[in-house]
Amino acid sequence: MRAALRRCAVAGPPPRRALSSAAAVDDRLLASLEAVCDTSTNASILARHGKDESHHACVPPDVVAFPASTAEVSALLRLCHERRTPVVPFGVGTSLEGHVQAPRGGLSIDVGAKMTAMLEENAGDMDCRAEAGATRKAVNAALRHTGLEFMVDPGADATVGGMAACGASGTTAVRYGTMRDAVLGLTVVLADGTVLETGGRARKSSAGYDLTRLFIGSEGTLGVITEVALALHPAPSHVSAATVRFETLAAAVEAVEGLRLHGVPVARCELLDATTLAAFNAYNAGVAGFSPQPLAPSLFLEFHGMSAARDTHLRLAANVEEQADVARAVAEDCGGSDFAWSADEGERNRLWAARHSTYYASLALKQDGRAVVTDACVPLSALADVVERTAADVAAAGVVGPIFGHAGDGNFHCILVYNDDDDADYLARLHGVNAKLVARAIDAGGTCTGEHGVGAGKKAYVLQERGPAAVGAMRAVKAALDPRGIMNPGKIFD
Amino acid sequence: MRAALRRCAVAGPPPRRALSSAAAVDDRLLASLEAVCDTSTNASILARHGKDESHHACVPPDVVAFPASTAEVSALLRLCHERRTPVVPFGVGTSLEGHVQAPRGGLSIDVGAKMTAMLEENAGDMDCRAEAGATRKAVNAALRHTGLEFMVDPGADATVGGMAACGASGTTAVRYGTMRDAVLGLTVVLADGTVLETGGRARKSSAGYDLTRLFIGSEGTLGVITEVALALHPAPSHVSAATVRFETLAAAVEAVEGLRLHGVPVARCELLDATTLAAFNAYNAGVAGFSPQPLAPSLFLEFHGMSAARDTHLRLAANVEEQADVARAVAEDCGGSDFAWSADEGERNRLWAARHSTYYASLALKQDGRAVVTDACVPLSALADVVERTAADVAAAGVVGPIFGHAGDGNFHCILVYNDDDDADYLARLHGVNAKLVARAIDAGGTCTGEHGVGAGKKAYVLQERGPAAVGAMRAVKAALDPRGIMNPGKIFD
Repeated sequence: MRAALRRCAVAGPPPRRALSSAAAVDDRLLASLEAVCDTSTNASILARHGKDESHHACVPPDVVAFPASTAEVSALLRLCHERRTPVVPFGVGTSLEGHVQAPRGGLSIDVGAKMTAMLEENAGDMDCRAEAGATRKAVNAALRHTGLEFMVDPGADATVGGMAACGASGTTAVRYGTMRDAVLGLTVVLADGTVLETGGRARKSSAGYDLTRLFIGSEGTLGVITEVALALHPAPSHVSAATVRFETLAAAVEAVEGLRLHGVPVARCELLDATTLAAFNAYNAGVAGFSPQPLAPSLFLEFHGMSAARDTHLRLAANVEEQADVARAVAEDCGGSDFAWSADEGERNRLWAARHSTYYASLALKQDGRAVVTDACVPLSALADVVERTAADVAAAGVVGPIFGHAGDGNFHCILVYNDDDDADYLARLHGVNAKLVARAIDAGGTCTGEHGVGAGKKAYVLQERGPAAVGAMRAVKAALDPRGIMNPGKIFD
Repeated sequence: MRAALRRCAVAGPPPRRALSSAAAVDDRLLASLEAVCDTSTNASILARHGKDESHHACVPPDVVAFPASTAEVSALLRLCHERRTPVVPFGVGTSLEGHVQAPRGGLSIDVGAKMTAMLEENAGDMDCRAEAGATRKAVNAALRHTGLEFMVDPGADATVGGMAACGASGTTAVRYGTMRDAVLGLTVVLADGTVLETGGRARKSSAGYDLTRLFIGSEGTLGVITEVALALHPAPSHVSAATVRFETLAAAVEAVEGLRLHGVPVARCELLDATTLAAFNAYNAGVAGFSPQPLAPSLFLEFHGMSAARDTHLRLAANVEEQADVARAVAEDCGGSDFAWSADEGERNRLWAARHSTYYASLALKQDGRAVVTDACVPLSALADVVERTAADVAAAGVVGPIFGHAGDGNFHCILVYNDDDDADYLARLHGVNAKLVARAIDAGGTCTGEHGVGAGKKAYVLQERGPAAVGAMRAVKAALDPRGIMNPGKIFD
């Protein structure tokens, strides 16, 4: 384990393990866990389960279990509950806020290994049910024959259970919503092993407290999600993409407001600043067919429709050509130029693959770069101001911080990149940019995290944003459902 | 109070008041409450606050308070918490499940009298913030100058706080969603007087537990909602309506599935059976300009668009003529006939006013009729079967039970009408129809309540639907946030 910790060491010390951690899983418990399902204490497997895709330190568990069913998860939890052993749920580790760290050791429950099945497809009702460890791409591959699609797209190929746990969304939320909208119900195992269903397959229900949405965004601190029922959408038969650039970020945001007011059902609506585009161009320069983008604030748009053009039958909601025409008119009203539109699938896929590489393109701005990823989300009217002030802070602090985001939702990311060569002063300036950004977002009525969740990284900001009374209510709910405090300790609040 | 109880007496005894109820509010507490804000112990005011619009008995509180601010609500709750006095939040009493009954007496907190202000209008961000006692029509009247609209429409002119507390929706949910989608954040006062904000103005957030949606549907059992931040939509500049009839309920539901799969953004999609239409015709016969509807399963549709026809500019999302054309084609594919379309505002308003009178039209099927109102919601594929079997049960039981509903969501109401002349056997058969309906809905993966909430009336059904583990989790949350059990006792669970 020491080797594992060394291998994934990062700047700054990892969170201290509690003194009792060595005893969190003793031989007796280990034997009991092994009797339930496959487990591992292999150092590299432990290390892989203590680290996500972010800058957060690797803090491995003492043991990893690979259950194959809700019943096995329940049996694992009963054992850990009895022994007060910490439990950290794990999907495939695509989190960006240190959610899988095991600061008090204990058991990592990996549902991503064996709990990946599609359980039900209800094409007529446009819903399905999958095990929590199925990734979103696997779900969509399984659904392909139905003509339906699970639309939430955070970029990473996360598990649907992990996406529910973090309240994930991504580029398509502007049209299709977030996990809060996409999940019809969950199977959840509570800390003491109790299994419950949070909802059925009805599209709406007022039958008691909304446990589904209580568990969405609970980040493994209230229980382990083992099954997810998802609302689906008809896969669009026609898709097109467009790019357009603006003189200023404010003009680009004004165009986004116009698209919303005109009711254009834009499927993706991404804002990229000049720094991001420079990183984007550099990172994708070698990709066949990639066209470098002009270095000006730009919108990347995608349109979904049931037909290509306006002269076909059943062309509602709407044909992609018409959507693009309106979007162009709106963008040009706001000073947009070089509106480039394409219905070509190859071109479109290259564009979005490149967009989804933006995080890695940003990291590549520094040798062996890692990053603090901000995730503020603000009312749209505040977006241009908050983004512009952040860009000014980045410049003034002399740090690397490209900015891009899901403009349709008011959600943006500043990727604050650093590496081992950076001194404490650089890191202090970098964290200063982050703190100012969050304070500004909260002042504007926004949130410190639109889609990544709180994890280990944003606890102080949640308290700042929601206030002690709201965080106190969260703690009370946590204590009610996990009275021994074993579920994913150290996340959301201390 | 005895007079009040007598005046609103109904079939069956009202829930028994606990023995301690006489002492729930003594003179000392009354004086303290009066020092906070206006109060009343007038018998008819108490009776008005113990009764909603349903068949549920009038069970009045001991005193009603009329606070003018969140601070006053907080002061009232601090006093009641200290004395363990029950508290029942009250808006305007449009509930259908006995939510405002005070089975243990105590204090009714009426936010509908003085807490009705529009607090913020953020037109650029398409959101607003109102006090909880503002009704939805008042909110929309205040918004008219902005061109924006709050779209959730349960028929009754309920308060936005009451609508949030019950997880309300209504005819427009098929396009615009329910209160779970419409509410951005709430100000809530907990049982002990603590004031908290559940969310900001960002369109999405993953900052900790989703307290907003925990309080939506909590029916006053976790705290008092005092302010509601709402997401708005552009008021449609063009609206049209259509009616179409079918040979069978199954054919009508098939048409609804077709509308969804073709992506027609239908704004209302109501299903009415022949019995409902007979009641509807009889009730509206005297209304100027009312056209009786043929007595066959029918859909009433409404289309919202930004333009009238397909030859105008910026005609997306979509023009109402085109939506109606597609809807007609889909309906006719399913055997629909007599598709009648109108963009005339007077005609449309008459149609929907008549539709919204369906509850009262149903009650009028019996002299001095009252009704048990079912509210099941099922996956769309099960809707025709569940509705047809229910209609057969109604016929076999020989009770009066027209059926209509929000077909786009799979939500329907069977209005089981009775009056004082009905004997115990009639009531037993009537409740038997209800029990079978709920069991069938749950078997189909549905819910016993799509939009009315649980209240005093559906507690047994929620347990049947969600199971003891889920209801146990709800109880644990309740105990955590309201440890003395003073908030709206006897609702959701015992």
